[in-house]
Amino acid sequence: MHQNMKPYVVGIDIGGTNTVFGIVDARGNVVASSSIKTGRHADIKDYVEELKTSLNNLLEANDATDKIAGIGVGAPNGNYFTGAIEMAPNLPWKGRIPLAELLKEAFGVPVALTNDANAAAIGEMTYGVARGMKDFIMITLGTGVGSGIVVNGQLVYGHDGFAGELGHVIVKPSNGRMCGCGRTGCLEAYCSATGVARTAREFLETRTDKSLLRNLPIEGITSKDVYDAAVQGDKLAKEIFEYTGKIMGEAFANFIAFSSPEAIILFGGLSRSGELLMKPIKEAMDRNTLNIYKGKTKLLLSELKESDAAVLGASALGWEAR
Amino acid sequence: MHQNMKPYVVGIDIGGTNTVFGIVDARGNVVASSSIKTGRHADIKDYVEELKTSLNNLLEANDATDKIAGIGVGAPNGNYFTGAIEMAPNLPWKGRIPLAELLKEAFGVPVALTNDANAAAIGEMTYGVARGMKDFIMITLGTGVGSGIVVNGQLVYGHDGFAGELGHVIVKPSNGRMCGCGRTGCLEAYCSATGVARTAREFLETRTDKSLLRNLPIEGITSKDVYDAAVQGDKLAKEIFEYTGKIMGEAFANFIAFSSPEAIILFGGLSRSGELLMKPIKEAMDRNTLNIYKGKTKLLLSELKESDAAVLGASALGWEAR
Repeated sequence: MHQNMKPYVVGIDIGGTNTVFGIVDARGNVVASSSIKTGRHADIKDYVEELKTSLNNLLEANDATDKIAGIGVGAPNGNYFTGAIEMAPNLPWKGRIPLAELLKEAFGVPVALTNDANAAAIGEMTYGVARGMKDFIMITLGTGVGSGIVVNGQLVYGHDGFAGELGHVIVKPSNGRMCGCGRTGCLEAYCSATGVARTAREFLETRTDKSLLRNLPIEGITSKDVYDAAVQGDKLAKEIFEYTGKIMGEAFANFIAFSSPEAIILFGGLSRSGELLMKPIKEAMDRNTLNIYKGKTKLLLSELKESDAAVLGASALGWEAR
Repeated sequence: MHQNMKPYVVGIDIGGTNTVFGIVDARGNVVASSSIKTGRHADIKDYVEELKTSLNNLLEANDATDKIAGIGVGAPNGNYFTGAIEMAPNLPWKGRIPLAELLKEAFGVPVALTNDANAAAIGEMTYGVARGMKDFIMITLGTGVGSGIVVNGQLVYGHDGFAGELGHVIVKPSNGRMCGCGRTGCLEAYCSATGVARTAREFLETRTDKSLLRNLPIEGITSKDVYDAAVQGDKLAKEIFEYTGKIMGEAFANFIAFSSPEAIILFGGLSRSGELLMKPIKEAMDRNTLNIYKGKTKLLLSELKESDAAVLGASALGWEAR
């Protein structure tokens, strides 16, 4: 069978917690998908071994073995140009990991790799709310804050393949929080799921007003707990979302001055907080946007199922992999 | 004579103070140039009238009348898509000025218009230090702070034609200085020539240490005065450059997280301050850049004569004007 005739690609989305992978057909249907825990193996070889076993099982179960044209991978700090993951702060493997090469050896098919957020942007552009848009920014709100930037219909990779790390724009130049990247004041330290939990702990420790959150052990509080409390009308929990949204909206106003996107699209767990988060983001965006941009950039939520966007986006790279 | 056979284009660079224009041949030689004062006419029609007279004189003197293929214009807040200047804070004309249309009527040739900083970036890419670069950011340091961003070999215009206003990225989210745009804390309020003069006044008013600058009337101090004092070893004047460079370097570190450019290129009056400014910028850039980008992005000075870059860049648009 000619390579071009193979009917499927595989998309792999590597997150800080889970690695989700799926078999995708030429129409963008996820035929089947599964996942493994990313953090289980400190050695990348053991990780690749588990992924190989698990993906091969999925391929066999779906009669797709030898029907894969290529594999596309979305991973934190994934470099499209080199096919390597380099110094990803939220993954167990340090230094430079030539993952595209390792997967090519393991599966015997072409592999292409990019940033997980870039993969999500490609998914959104191909199948989601960004269809037809030439200029947009995808912001992924998960364990960290990632971004995929599209300018003139193309992903922005920069001169080294690493462009678009908007989670590590410094939004608090002084007295900022420590970030996983080793610096202080990054957007990610405030606006990721873990950032929201940190804000909750800060508020609870420095204030004395009542809150449903005080019924929970403070070290274990998650962004989900904050959401649940806010939905029940808890004032402090709502303020946590307002604080988070304000920082995000101010940052977005600066991003608009860079690429003047048609839309900023939110994706990932925290984006499902609805108006609790969207309202303060919109207000801060409007208040801080330069007059020539005011009211022009839409703030949208991803239309794709969370796992699907990244897997579909990564899989789209699979068709082009060489 | 066929339109395509006309041997010259005209480049017009509209600055807050001067409008410089030149006749340019197909090899990028500025055959002749002249200028008028931008601020002399509150009415755009009077401005176009003076420009028409002055440019026609230049064309006649150089035997170039009827030999112009097109006119390219670089102007603050110039929109490539609409050919209009819209709400430029540093120009005498308010609202939306359809300048491309007005010039087309005045000269009877095709006219294209863009941001003055975008024009400078095109000039630098075609004739200057950015030759061969596909990803760079041009920062213009004049009365204001402008920028032209090139990604993947193309100018970033955004969905509305206004992308790349990095002078209006908010670098001081709290207690920032008032900016000409009506907001507070913009990069331009600190790192333009006028920003440097403001810093000088602030330092002189809030401190008591000796400085050569105290010999000058405080309200009239310019960035040139600060430069002259610093060159003579004045400690306070040197600190003004360090303060300015630190803010710029921190902002550049954030810009790198966006488009990961091969170089950031400085252009305009203040960039001629040499190591007084470059050293603190480099230090703050290195200190604040995310580890995956560290040491990769060059900080360069424009290689083009100040007036030439903008005129040449604008003129390049003239060849493509329709």
